[in-house]
Amino acid sequence: MSSSSSSSFEQPQVITCKAAVAWRAGEPLVMEEVEVSPPQPLEIRIKVVCTSLCRSDLSAWESQSLLPRIFGHEAAGIVESIGEGVTEFEKGDHVLAVFTGECGSCRHCISGKSNMCQVLGMERKGLMHSDQKTRFSIKGKPVYHYCAVSSFSEYTVVHSGCAVKVDPVAPLHKICLLSCGVAAGSLGAAWNVADVQKGSSVVIFGLGTVGLSVAQGAKLRGATQIIGVDINPAKAEQAKTFGVTDFINSNDLSEPTPQVIKRMTGGGADFSFECVGDTGIATTALQSCSDGWGMTVTLGVPKVKPEVSAHYGLFLSGKSLKGTLFGGWKPKSDLPSLIEKYMNKEIMIDEFVTHNLAFDEINKAFDLMRNGNCLRCVLHMPK
Amino acid sequence: MSSSSSSSFEQPQVITCKAAVAWRAGEPLVMEEVEVSPPQPLEIRIKVVCTSLCRSDLSAWESQSLLPRIFGHEAAGIVESIGEGVTEFEKGDHVLAVFTGECGSCRHCISGKSNMCQVLGMERKGLMHSDQKTRFSIKGKPVYHYCAVSSFSEYTVVHSGCAVKVDPVAPLHKICLLSCGVAAGSLGAAWNVADVQKGSSVVIFGLGTVGLSVAQGAKLRGATQIIGVDINPAKAEQAKTFGVTDFINSNDLSEPTPQVIKRMTGGGADFSFECVGDTGIATTALQSCSDGWGMTVTLGVPKVKPEVSAHYGLFLSGKSLKGTLFGGWKPKSDLPSLIEKYMNKEIMIDEFVTHNLAFDEINKAFDLMRNGNCLRCVLHMPK
Ligand SMILES: [Zn+2]
Ligand SMILES: [Zn+2]
Ligand SMILES: [Zn+2]
Ligand SMILES: [Zn+2]
Repeated sequence: MSSSSSSSFEQPQVITCKAAVAWRAGEPLVMEEVEVSPPQPLEIRIKVVCTSLCRSDLSAWESQSLLPRIFGHEAAGIVESIGEGVTEFEKGDHVLAVFTGECGSCRHCISGKSNMCQVLGMERKGLMHSDQKTRFSIKGKPVYHYCAVSSFSEYTVVHSGCAVKVDPVAPLHKICLLSCGVAAGSLGAAWNVADVQKGSSVVIFGLGTVGLSVAQGAKLRGATQIIGVDINPAKAEQAKTFGVTDFINSNDLSEPTPQVIKRMTGGGADFSFECVGDTGIATTALQSCSDGWGMTVTLGVPKVKPEVSAHYGLFLSGKSLKGTLFGGWKPKSDLPSLIEKYMNKEIMIDEFVTHNLAFDEINKAFDLMRNGNCLRCVLHMPK
Repeated sequence: MSSSSSSSFEQPQVITCKAAVAWRAGEPLVMEEVEVSPPQPLEIRIKVVCTSLCRSDLSAWESQSLLPRIFGHEAAGIVESIGEGVTEFEKGDHVLAVFTGECGSCRHCISGKSNMCQVLGMERKGLMHSDQKTRFSIKGKPVYHYCAVSSFSEYTVVHSGCAVKVDPVAPLHKICLLSCGVAAGSLGAAWNVADVQKGSSVVIFGLGTVGLSVAQGAKLRGATQIIGVDINPAKAEQAKTFGVTDFINSNDLSEPTPQVIKRMTGGGADFSFECVGDTGIATTALQSCSDGWGMTVTLGVPKVKPEVSAHYGLFLSGKSLKGTLFGGWKPKSDLPSLIEKYMNKEIMIDEFVTHNLAFDEINKAFDLMRNGNCLRCVLHMPK
């Protein structure tokens, strides 16, 4: 990392603004006045416009984690100020913030085959990548970040490598969904990771936003059979919109799910996707795909039992198991073209937005997400 | 399956010959006079010329299994007689017998992407595919087959879909090694399954015939770093012949193997292969390959703990786990071209033959295989 100082550089000042702060695991967030530091070298400060709630915000908030903390990692906004050395952005640029960055020069960024940036990869300590400190404080006491995004705040500071400049005509309250592993990630799982082919059969376990986005990706690739498995019967109707051709409520089955899938697909699906966050279901997904060429992609982040376990015979018979973070997309390299596809109506985003709320109703958004019938709730910051 | 009867068909008779029979798990084989039935419809009877001993014969013989039984599944021979409806072979043809067949018409055989024939796949009940009976008996009492090959007999009967006609100029005492998942299988693992690319780094766990064949396959593909891991220091020198560039004795390491491999490869190998038959090592192999694109191929058949288990994070970071049986080769479609490659000196087989013995010394061959310094022992039938 280099930092060039410019003599004409106008030093941004601390901003005090509203943020939704988590003080205790699983307890309602509290709207607080927070201080947001100026962006440090190679960082930018963003005025958040819209931010949507993702299941991993919920999981992190429910579990023991670094507190107090500002969650939120699906975010669209406008650059308010830039730190030293930033040349890619200027004040007023429209941007998406992303939880996994792209430095552009590490072994992974230059590999052409990985989005696991070694410099700006997923940040798990609640700090900024560059100096392992926070940019938020309340009366001088530090408040932790989440995934180096922390968009449940009117202003936030992110590394310039964790932001993507977007076309200003794109509606921020929709495209914010592309900034996480959700819409982008799961289209990516179907396209980049599984490379679903025309005419193939696909089974998707878990019909939340991730699963439905896989369905969309598979449909766009011409998959002819897209089986969706969930335990919520309300998903049956909703799933059709995204391309699911057959809905299975796994609670209604009287025989093991893989057996049902094998019968429906004449021997096993070509592709199966685990979108629940349950390693047991990853095994079921592997059992449900075809010998010889079946591929299982695991996308979920499990809350319990982190070990995926499967009989070696499943692999010996020619199946494969893959995973992905953010669908294999490199944010800077790939998101602009996804936004373009959305603007050209080639991919759906609007259909995932089941709820819109004002930022100060954020706790209601958490409730909606927990109730299971919300795909995405977009939170709108005050103008 | 169809069977056409021909009036001019000359019915073959029962043959009585020598076979090495396993009467009790782990106890020396006994040379017995056995009756070998005539080939039934679509079957052929083969005069075995050479057969080599594979580790899976050893494992099956050591464990509880169907007894009495005739092991052996790496075999080359000459067609002695054919059953009704066989048009592909005639008396005198040189053939390899294979443990996994190719019917040519099932969903897998016609898929172009799988060798998991649904009709003539690996047979586990010690019987023939077509009628679930045996073709061997001793004084009228049935003797079980092994993998529908059973080549530890002067004559054997196999389904015509489990035999491959070979060029009669190819030396049977060498090419018999191609008839199992060993030489063919592991070249296949490097080529068909992993598709190892020029310049890549490879780590191979277990330097038996399978592992060394992966090394050969990787070297032929232009891999620049081929790390071999074994606990037998004698492997270090032998492994060089097959392309291993760096030998690691995992017993000598003072830190976890994945850590060592990551340092040696600058972040993890591009490809890792489990050739030991230990699901714990499959996990180690997965930990040793690179985030983002690392691929682990598991080839071994474990004796204990059949479940492969790995932290979901390994997959989320973009790694994949695959397996294969017989290296993904379709025997009839692919073996002739491998034999051609051998005849053109493009692939090594001779170097795997560390021992040659007469058929009646078969128990010595089992001892050699157990001692660990034997790659392949070829057994020669009496003329
Ligand atoms: Zn997310
Ligand atoms: Zn990078
Ligand atoms: Zn074998
Ligand atoms: Zn077949």
